[in-house]
Amino acid sequence: MKKLLLVISLLPLFALAQEKNFVQFVKPLIGTQRMGHTYPGATVPFGSVQLSPETDTLSYEKNGKYNGDVYKYCAGYQYDDKTIVGFSHTHFSGTGHSDLGDFLIMPTTGQLQLNPGTADHPENGYRSKFSHANEIAEPAYYKVKLDDHAILAELTATTRVGFHQYTFPKSDNAHIILDLMSGIYNYENKNVWTFVRVENDSTITGFRQTNGWARTRTVYFAMKFSKPFKEYGFKNQATDVYKGFWRKFDQSKNFPEIAGKQIKAWFDFNTEEGEKIKIKFALSPVSTEGALKNLQAEIPHWDFDSVKREGQQQWNKELNKIKVESLTNNEQINFYTAMYHAFLSPTTYMDLDGSYKGLDQNIHKAENFTNYTTFSLWDTYRALHPFFNLIQPKRNQDMIQSMMAHYDQGVHKMLPVWSHYANENWCMIGYHSVSVIADAVIKGNANFDVNKALEACVTTARNQYYDGLSYYMKMGYVPEDKNSSSVSKTLEYAYDDWCIAQMAKKLGRNDIYEEFIKRSENYKNVYDASTGYMRPKLNDGTWKSGFDALSTNGQGYIEGNAWNYSLYVPQNPAQLVEMMGGKDRFTKHLDSLFSMHLPDEFFAETEDITRDGIIGNYVHGNEPAHHVAYLYNWTNQPWKTQDKVRMILKHQYKPTPDGLGGNDDCGQMSAWYIFTSLGFYPVAPGSDEYSIGSPAVKSAELQLENGKTFSIATVNQSEKNVYVQKIELNGKPLTGYTVKHSDIMNGGKLVFYMSAKPKKN
Amino acid sequence: MKKLLLVISLLPLFALAQEKNFVQFVKPLIGTQRMGHTYPGATVPFGSVQLSPETDTLSYEKNGKYNGDVYKYCAGYQYDDKTIVGFSHTHFSGTGHSDLGDFLIMPTTGQLQLNPGTADHPENGYRSKFSHANEIAEPAYYKVKLDDHAILAELTATTRVGFHQYTFPKSDNAHIILDLMSGIYNYENKNVWTFVRVENDSTITGFRQTNGWARTRTVYFAMKFSKPFKEYGFKNQATDVYKGFWRKFDQSKNFPEIAGKQIKAWFDFNTEEGEKIKIKFALSPVSTEGALKNLQAEIPHWDFDSVKREGQQQWNKELNKIKVESLTNNEQINFYTAMYHAFLSPTTYMDLDGSYKGLDQNIHKAENFTNYTTFSLWDTYRALHPFFNLIQPKRNQDMIQSMMAHYDQGVHKMLPVWSHYANENWCMIGYHSVSVIADAVIKGNANFDVNKALEACVTTARNQYYDGLSYYMKMGYVPEDKNSSSVSKTLEYAYDDWCIAQMAKKLGRNDIYEEFIKRSENYKNVYDASTGYMRPKLNDGTWKSGFDALSTNGQGYIEGNAWNYSLYVPQNPAQLVEMMGGKDRFTKHLDSLFSMHLPDEFFAETEDITRDGIIGNYVHGNEPAHHVAYLYNWTNQPWKTQDKVRMILKHQYKPTPDGLGGNDDCGQMSAWYIFTSLGFYPVAPGSDEYSIGSPAVKSAELQLENGKTFSIATVNQSEKNVYVQKIELNGKPLTGYTVKHSDIMNGGKLVFYMSAKPKKN
Repeated sequence: MKKLLLVISLLPLFALAQEKNFVQFVKPLIGTQRMGHTYPGATVPFGSVQLSPETDTLSYEKNGKYNGDVYKYCAGYQYDDKTIVGFSHTHFSGTGHSDLGDFLIMPTTGQLQLNPGTADHPENGYRSKFSHANEIAEPAYYKVKLDDHAILAELTATTRVGFHQYTFPKSDNAHIILDLMSGIYNYENKNVWTFVRVENDSTITGFRQTNGWARTRTVYFAMKFSKPFKEYGFKNQATDVYKGFWRKFDQSKNFPEIAGKQIKAWFDFNTEEGEKIKIKFALSPVSTEGALKNLQAEIPHWDFDSVKREGQQQWNKELNKIKVESLTNNEQINFYTAMYHAFLSPTTYMDLDGSYKGLDQNIHKAENFTNYTTFSLWDTYRALHPFFNLIQPKRNQDMIQSMMAHYDQGVHKMLPVWSHYANENWCMIGYHSVSVIADAVIKGNANFDVNKALEACVTTARNQYYDGLSYYMKMGYVPEDKNSSSVSKTLEYAYDDWCIAQMAKKLGRNDIYEEFIKRSENYKNVYDASTGYMRPKLNDGTWKSGFDALSTNGQGYIEGNAWNYSLYVPQNPAQLVEMMGGKDRFTKHLDSLFSMHLPDEFFAETEDITRDGIIGNYVHGNEPAHHVAYLYNWTNQPWKTQDKVRMILKHQYKPTPDGLGGNDDCGQMSAWYIFTSLGFYPVAPGSDEYSIGSPAVKSAELQLENGKTFSIATVNQSEKNVYVQKIELNGKPLTGYTVKHSDIMNGGKLVFYMSAKPKKN
Repeated sequence: MKKLLLVISLLPLFALAQEKNFVQFVKPLIGTQRMGHTYPGATVPFGSVQLSPETDTLSYEKNGKYNGDVYKYCAGYQYDDKTIVGFSHTHFSGTGHSDLGDFLIMPTTGQLQLNPGTADHPENGYRSKFSHANEIAEPAYYKVKLDDHAILAELTATTRVGFHQYTFPKSDNAHIILDLMSGIYNYENKNVWTFVRVENDSTITGFRQTNGWARTRTVYFAMKFSKPFKEYGFKNQATDVYKGFWRKFDQSKNFPEIAGKQIKAWFDFNTEEGEKIKIKFALSPVSTEGALKNLQAEIPHWDFDSVKREGQQQWNKELNKIKVESLTNNEQINFYTAMYHAFLSPTTYMDLDGSYKGLDQNIHKAENFTNYTTFSLWDTYRALHPFFNLIQPKRNQDMIQSMMAHYDQGVHKMLPVWSHYANENWCMIGYHSVSVIADAVIKGNANFDVNKALEACVTTARNQYYDGLSYYMKMGYVPEDKNSSSVSKTLEYAYDDWCIAQMAKKLGRNDIYEEFIKRSENYKNVYDASTGYMRPKLNDGTWKSGFDALSTNGQGYIEGNAWNYSLYVPQNPAQLVEMMGGKDRFTKHLDSLFSMHLPDEFFAETEDITRDGIIGNYVHGNEPAHHVAYLYNWTNQPWKTQDKVRMILKHQYKPTPDGLGGNDDCGQMSAWYIFTSLGFYPVAPGSDEYSIGSPAVKSAELQLENGKTFSIATVNQSEKNVYVQKIELNGKPLTGYTVKHSDIMNGGKLVFYMSAKPKKN
């Protein structure tokens, strides 16, 4: 291992001749302002460690009530903030609820202060003012000057180890603080327990156990300083911890062990001017022993620059999987930043030896796959996992194996809904794991036990206590008076059921196909022909009164109103068009959606997005309508899809900190960008067809894992020439507005002939 | 495994022809009234599971202050109580501080009640009245009628599995409650976290993590019912737990997973008249997976009687290691109950595959030894471990290996002080692990790495932050104004240091010998010739003023006043006698000790004992004076030792629930009884000599693990003939009042000639 690393580190940044430097286009700061909820810190592709600055760590509660401001800090960092609290090791990318922020490290000079202080008065705590002028964020590298302490902070990472490098001024009062109380979406009693041991004069181990979005979560760590500390100490702020005979000891200073609920640790140093103190901080889902092994194996040396270089090499290798020529530099930035965001999660969740904690809280070993966690499936089933089937097929199979392990180890016998760190957090709705699995099976990317996977999908879909499902199974819809968001649930269950049917069909299980293809028609049960919308129905079969098609909250929908959700039949747009009154009427619905004004009162109900995150009443910042712009392909005006997707690309993605109009949602927003930029989109994952839009790139070359190359070229491409006149696949005209997955995987070339005028026929 | 168990279960209770039925003499109820702190429930020798009734579960705190009454419930059971709260799976035997009481099970009928109710009003909760008339306590078997529910409860156990058998009346409202909040020495927030899964209609798994005497303790379980429950549910009484998206579910009924801090579970059944519902409840220190494996391997069937029979066979095998003929049936009961109590702890602490949790909270594997926990070393180094060197030598070696693992895995690099369940709880004083190790080394029972063990002893004894030790090393005593109980600490450190010196000498480490033999003389530094007592000295070298030889608390002593502690130089009684003014004056000190009256005000300061636990000012109920009756052997009146030990045996041990005058202290009080009954006692563990007293048995036969037999016979033995006239070892007269360990281990015969008159010469 050691030898290999040395060899690699001698290579130039871009090792392979055909690799281009795409890392330069990635701007991790994109999305860090307002609603993007991305983080700017250092991580490697799908890494376990996301070492990133916290600009605030608010409490989930304020005066006993939910503190709305905490929402801004889902990823720990807000671009508008003026201070940095410290650097913690775990972060979600783009989520709309949160957790993590484990093990906050902060270097300081001067008087030791163990409270973080406030944004207004950083001098009252350990936090520091900083300026974006002194900040650099790159893949696998983050750098910032901490003004109040005159410390230059640099961060890089391997998969399981965060690497800090702090350049100090001369000081005989230099500190490094490890704050175990700090966390994202923190609240009183979130820390269930923490445990710290000072193993020797430069090594610390321990764990943090929390009760948060993940109910029973423990992260273990091992931390090594490049130089021995001269003194150290702990502060235990909890008063409700039984002290027993530990009273015998003064545990506040140079005492090597502490445990409790509210612990902070400090380590003191003398530093020379410009002296670098480095920290390697390894994580493990299993044990401190695992963390120590991960630390030693992944970074057996103290060469910060080589770890940074290797991390950027890893990124460049992943980014080179699609070589894109964009129309503008900004679009090149957008594209590769989207690639970067798409390759952040799910995250690796196992020790180097394959050990990980399962949902049963037992330790398991991943045999022949990488175990992943952080499955934001309500978001990512739409485009991210389909994107992985295209460009990260092996990883997607491993993700499915991880989902199967979740199914096996969970007591509910359900595939994940929203899972992280050996926990199901049950966020959002549906059982979209089945979409991810069906998409892989249908697309032939299924080197796993497909029959067992089908069984897991079916068992999941038959659960009797999950979220209105028993009503749905009995009555064909979820009654709003029995379970909220009933329209969204009914529609999404119906789509998921169609996925199961497709998979069953392919696997020759006609019994299952019949059951689930029938269930997949349940969307019809919530369509109210009198209003022309999908509408909440009650247990007695009548429509819920007081219907307002613009309203979301408490009206039977979630993250999308009736205008948007009424379009959610991705499994059968043709029938949807028919049901909603035919192509003309459907086209008008779409046209209005994109052009109407959503009054403020209803916008306020739309979660997770800024005003920029909507176009008319089309909510791109949320996911339920992500396929909607492509639905014109099922009308007589497919050129409107081309127009709309180019408009969305342009308006919803900008190469600036506030460039994302809504949460990136673990890469779903980015995956939409990538697909759409390339000219096609998976309207119905679980089908082998992509729906054609309008490419935004000049050209693209997809390096497939099977060794083949698929090229996308454009003729007459420009910002104004958004309309597709003609498409050729491998030199032959493509009829219709679909391209098959297999056509891409076989390698070849897709040429779009572009024009400023729509092709109406 | 299964086959083997079946074969065994076909054997009669006492499998080997030469085995006698000694189980019949064991009365587990002895010591359950008042201060004995023993428990009456079911366990096998050194078993992990101690399945025993709780008659109350008080809180450690009452109105924010320490609740003195909780002390009565160190073992969960008080004989005077009229109600049983339930049956939990872990109990200490005889401790004076407590923890455990994990996983309380209670069967009930009628209306479901999830609170325990009160002793005065059991009908307000799930607890039940009971009567001793309907109670049977035997080794590995406990039976009681639960009057309020008309349920007959029977308990038995294997090493890692508790086996419950409840005979119900006819009821369509029968319940079995699993109370995860219940515990011994409970207090607010003791439960750090609990986790429960209903794996199927009859299997439950989970864990309980507590912050108690052990700071970071987790016990895992797996539980199987003999019959599927018809319904089940949970109640989470905690209000401070973040609920997240678990709000979606009604977790109170038939929902298979819960986690939190204050959880109770219930399982409902219909029962026929006389129907037995059985529960197998396995523990693991590692995981629920480990618990399930332990369960399946140790009890793969539902035959309660065979498990009970096998448990009693195990006990009988252990009890047969000493075949005793007593003068009275009561003494026979006392002797075998003492044997039983001596073989309860340390307890096995590992899964069947050898996995256990270490002090670093990582999982380790015991290679070629059984890992034990619950080391009450301040008590047990005196007689229990020396007794193990004699009669359980292999287990004692394994215990030392377990202590070495503690040393290796603990961050303090200290051998255990008082440890349980992967935690050091730091209770009491000294570092008496070194005595246990030295005793094994000196006695040649040391099939472990003796050099590493010596290193561990030395490192332990040089710790700079432990309990006044740095002062002791620098100044030769612990100054009372720097660290309390300074006299006791100085004296005990000095003895421990002598142990290290003995071991070093045997291992040829003269450097260490010199250092520690010098330290072992430190007792002289706290001897005040002007008062004739060991006395607290201050940092400035002067004696602390206000000295009162009768007082204990805050006066430089712990669990023994100056009268008792001044006699604590077990490593060199001859020098002690000299220092205290010669044999005559010393004899007078001893005479006074046993005959004086300890005024109530000073008795109140004497912890852990009843008034019956003292004889004059000699405190047998506490340990510091356990060797004192033997000190007459160093005067001119050794016959007084004979007189006193027979008196102590008679007065301090009775075959009744209140028969123990003080805490049994994990077997130390019992080991004293056994040694003394046999006629000799290890005054200074770490020496190979025993001091002769007066045997109380008529005869005894020790079956040694090396295959040899050592017999003890008496001539003219009677209750009145307490004086030894002559002793013969293998037919040759024994001169002096010592017998060597090797003389015993070589096998042979020791004959005591007894008389009603002392042999004065």
